[in-house]
Amino acid sequence: MFTPRPIGFVTSPYKNTGDVPRGLGAQHSADGVLKILPEFEPGLTDIEGFSHLFVLWEFDHSRGFELLGTPPSDNRPHGVFATRSPYRPNPIALTVVELLRRDGLDLHVRGVDMLDGTPILDIKPYLSGVPSEKLRRGWLAEAESRPK
Amino acid sequence: MFTPRPIGFVTSPYKNTGDVPRGLGAQHSADGVLKILPEFEPGLTDIEGFSHLFVLWEFDHSRGFELLGTPPSDNRPHGVFATRSPYRPNPIALTVVELLRRDGLDLHVRGVDMLDGTPILDIKPYLSGVPSEKLRRGWLAEAESRPK
Repeated sequence: MFTPRPIGFVTSPYKNTGDVPRGLGAQHSADGVLKILPEFEPGLTDIEGFSHLFVLWEFDHSRGFELLGTPPSDNRPHGVFATRSPYRPNPIALTVVELLRRDGLDLHVRGVDMLDGTPILDIKPYLSGVPSEKLRRGWLAEAESRPK
Repeated sequence: MFTPRPIGFVTSPYKNTGDVPRGLGAQHSADGVLKILPEFEPGLTDIEGFSHLFVLWEFDHSRGFELLGTPPSDNRPHGVFATRSPYRPNPIALTVVELLRRDGLDLHVRGVDMLDGTPILDIKPYLSGVPSEKLRRGWLAEAESRPK
């Protein structure tokens, strides 16, 4: 397969894993900057037109993977492909951010949940979403509806 | 960085690149199967509860990358990070599919746009989307509104 390389790095207010809001109802409204490496600048052409972006990044603090794990939003174990666990066979994360503005190589965004210094693998335009009334959210909906 | 490995392979009706619907208004409603490798089966636990999944996969037919390219949906060039071009610094693709049913290691899904035999890197639950009224879609919206 291919050899991953960073296209840039995240500047984030979160310096340690424990700083990132997690679990039920966690809000990711923090502002951060996607700092793209100079060699990739032409790849940003026309990105300003999009309000939201998919950011693919590396869980670079994770070693190994766990096929079953208990997420912070539940007290029961679930399969890794049914969670956002960082301990995945391929440690690739996905975050949707709002693009506030572009300043040259810097994409100022809202909604970061990465640690400061996280390597970015890819950025894609967000073109459409699945309407919430069509979504079933499995164990997460169950965990949300369970009495605390 | 990490070394990518397939967690499974796609069974798709599309055998050649030209078979995949592309360009403005292309619909991805084809049914396919995400065939997960046996060693990862526990990772699928509870995935049945989700109606939609993110699938990360490898553009394994792409060699090299182009920072500027003209997508099938427009006649003007755009930056690779503002398009879904397969010629990316990291050849990782993202597709949202509807999960129709699970049959052991096989996830029967709707909405595939991968070629038959494509290596799958990761599967994540789709938890929420950005409402369409909040989206700006840049050059794509312009291309759609331009007289043909």
